Amino acid sequence: MERPREHQLPSAQDGTAASSAPTAPPAREPSHAERCRTLVAGETRGALSTLAADPAGYPYGSVVSFGLADNGDPLFFVSTMAEHTQNALRDPRASLLVTEPVPEGADPLASGRATLLGLLTPVGDDQREVARTRYLEANPAASYYIDFGDFTFLRLAVDHIRYVGGYGRMSWVDAAGYARAEPDPLADAAAGIIEHMNADHADAQVLFCHHFAGLTDTTSASMSAVDRYGFDMVAVSEEHRTPVRLAFTDECTTGDEVRKAMVAMVAEARSATG
Amino acid sequence: MERPREHQLPSAQDGTAASSAPTAPPAREPSHAERCRTLVAGETRGALSTLAADPAGYPYGSVVSFGLADNGDPLFFVSTMAEHTQNALRDPRASLLVTEPVPEGADPLASGRATLLGLLTPVGDDQREVARTRYLEANPAASYYIDFGDFTFLRLAVDHIRYVGGYGRMSWVDAAGYARAEPDPLADAAAGIIEHMNADHADAQVLFCHHFAGLTDTTSASMSAVDRYGFDMVAVSEEHRTPVRLAFTDECTTGDEVRKAMVAMVAEARSATG
Repeated sequence: MERPREHQLPSAQDGTAASSAPTAPPAREPSHAERCRTLVAGETRGALSTLAADPAGYPYGSVVSFGLADNGDPLFFVSTMAEHTQNALRDPRASLLVTEPVPEGADPLASGRATLLGLLTPVGDDQREVARTRYLEANPAASYYIDFGDFTFLRLAVDHIRYVGGYGRMSWVDAAGYARAEPDPLADAAAGIIEHMNADHADAQVLFCHHFAGLTDTTSASMSAVDRYGFDMVAVSEEHRTPVRLAFTDECTTGDEVRKAMVAMVAEARSATG
Repeated sequence: MERPREHQLPSAQDGTAASSAPTAPPAREPSHAERCRTLVAGETRGALSTLAADPAGYPYGSVVSFGLADNGDPLFFVSTMAEHTQNALRDPRASLLVTEPVPEGADPLASGRATLLGLLTPVGDDQREVARTRYLEANPAASYYIDFGDFTFLRLAVDHIRYVGGYGRMSWVDAAGYARAEPDPLADAAAGIIEHMNADHADAQVLFCHHFAGLTDTTSASMSAVDRYGFDMVAVSEEHRTPVRLAFTDECTTGDEVRKAMVAMVAEARSATG
């Protein structure tokens, strides 16, 4: 398995093997609060944990669909007769586990997941229209039963967050930071950017590893992630596989901005090495 | 959305529209205990709910891989430092939510899921080898770290089970019945049988609906499920879509036995109508 990036990045970037590398800006990464917000915004289904009445006090897991309030609080539309609804009305302590999709054949424990903990309570009349709108945006198929009388809206007021980004990459996340964070604007475009960069611009990535990361023995490289602040690659040499993160000079919020940033980085690297 | 089968089956089978139908055996179905056992045996990953220390008593959801003991109790191999492990050691009340895969584009709330509730405790030394074997059978990739010293085996001793088979098909399941139940022997073959029956034997299914279910206005039919006891179809007429379940005369435990049963049913239906 790949070693966690966070632990290895400094060694590729603090200059120990990188005498030609100081031209790179510091490799800013999304905070864990931002990563959680992006992860949760990208999904509409999760595992809700509530407290059962019988057997008393047991944590009870169930499947739920959700939408998101402006501050990232999950909104649910649930049958009033369902176990989780009855549980929440008795004791509002709850959590929502949201997981990234696991690629076919990949290790599920290497994918990101967030547990949002908080109090799960009915949405007040004054917030019902907003909840309805947000829930339907995330779950359009619910329009067939959104006005059923025996369903109700619940909101999880998030007060604690646990984030696990994969092996060795985990933390308790500041809930206020999550509430303020924006989902990454490149989240939807990322898969296409990665595919394009790996299919058509493998040479540029090798150049980046040579020039910006000082990994002059890199023979091939592939992109594994991209976000508004920068991107991650795996640099391969005859002896090593090294995770590398490079930052964009300016934040990129569209695929087109990423393309322009990449072109500029290629030009900078070529002019320095040529 | 499809109405729940259980509620509609009697009307297709109790003879109200089925004067030609009494040749069919009663349409035995897997019990909910059997359905749970089959569902859980088909997955290796679920959402574990434990009780957090901080925030105190909140139910805490996390991702886990699991194997199964002989009686269907889930077995976990977890880091001793992980939140869920620490939670379980303080308070063993826990549950494991296991969900069927959701087909692309399908409604996630229409898929089956089971919540196994019980006490989550360390596996004793005398059971460690069995737990290790069963966990590795289900999670072969864990062989890379199965002998790490800071991991431990836990077992969820299931004492309550909630089953949701889709809209309107749910119950609390007898835990002793789950412990005794066998996973359906056709579980792995079912997808292939269904694909084959719908691709090559649509006519036979229409014949079944006419003869065994008395739905003489059926113009097309497709299989939606098959298990050791029988199979489910949707019978389509100009005016209705009717769920139909037919039982095998004898239980089928292999795809070949299903094929022979289908051939015999076709012969019976043809000889009665011809």
